[in-house]
Amino acid sequence: MIVADLSMIPMGEGTGAGRYVRAIHQVLKESGLNFVPGPMSTALEAESMEEIFDVIKKANEALTQLGVQRIVTSLKIDYRTDKDISIDTKMSAIR
Amino acid sequence: MIVADLSMIPMGEGTGAGRYVRAIHQVLKESGLNFVPGPMSTALEAESMEEIFDVIKKANEALTQLGVQRIVTSLKIDYRTDKDISIDTKMSAIR
Amino acid sequence: MIVADLSMIPMGEGTGAGRYVRAIHQVLKESGLNFVPGPMSTALEAESMEEIFDVIKKANEALTQLGVQRIVTSLKIDYRTDKDISIDTKMSAIR
Amino acid sequence: MIVADLSMIPMGEGTGAGRYVRAIHQVLKESGLNFVPGPMSTALEAESMEEIFDVIKKANEALTQLGVQRIVTSLKIDYRTDKDISIDTKMSAIR
Repeated sequence: MIVADLSMIPMGEGTGAGRYVRAIHQVLKESGLNFVPGPMSTALEAESMEEIFDVIKKANEALTQLGVQRIVTSLKIDYRTDKDISIDTKMSAIR
Repeated sequence: MIVADLSMIPMGEGTGAGRYVRAIHQVLKESGLNFVPGPMSTALEAESMEEIFDVIKKANEALTQLGVQRIVTSLKIDYRTDKDISIDTKMSAIR
Repeated sequence: MIVADLSMIPMGEGTGAGRYVRAIHQVLKESGLNFVPGPMSTALEAESMEEIFDVIKKANEALTQLGVQRIVTSLKIDYRTDKDISIDTKMSAIR
Repeated sequence: MIVADLSMIPMGEGTGAGRYVRAIHQVLKESGLNFVPGPMSTALEAESMEEIFDVIKKANEALTQLGVQRIVTSLKIDYRTDKDISIDTKMSAIR
């Protein structure tokens, strides 16, 4: 699997972002992908890059529908072909 | 347009990365997207998120074909609906 | 408090990084700062930016002593003056 | 030298950020460090991590003085001990 880390910053909408983060999590839930929210970003895993990209597009659309006019999305993708990874194997490797 | 910033780190392939960065630039050239290489990342602009995602997928495939077995891709996307932006308008705004 | 997110990528040392992540966690433990490891990065909180910077410097030194010759450190800092935040308040805000 | 990449996002201050990016550049100018503004971030180089951290602290203070109440700072540091690098050597390596 491919493991990724996603954070999205709404600009121009006040200093709080909880409402928007919850909207992103809703998109993730509907995608069926496994994800783990963290204090600064959300980790997710997918079988393909397309699934990750699809979620990011939908999350940008969801925030736009909530009225956000500028969104800075940060995505980090861990792609490896030598070994099967997942959120769980990555957490185990650092314990 | 959507402006983005891309950097990809090959792991397990020595400390140098110039060869891989040039391969990513080759993918960008073939995509037809406008891009500006920087010392730490490459800025690019596209009409749609799909175009950006397509390039990232192809760049990961290009590095995999060069033998890289683990790639960490960092992508930042600046998406705004209140104003048309480009690499040029963003550079003008900070001068 | 200031909440931050840290990830460090060792280049030129094989595709695995568990050993190095554990060394970074050791530096964090010795710092006394509260931190939460995640699959893609480690969240931490501190009273000041200096405490965060000190940990990053020491973590780079720790990896250098393990033989790593190139390290790409990614740090994200959430600094706000309108509200007291912590890893816990941030996790509560998104539930 | 150490090469780094810095971007700072002001939250709660409208969708435009040009004014704040210029304030960050002013801090960089006063620091004496060499820096290259890009469309999505600013590359800089320094002899030590302390110099980079000092600039980030001052840039956060400068935005706070302009009234920004929440700032998300992203920093990427390229630290290598096997080779002397600079913004120039990195740009040459990818040409």
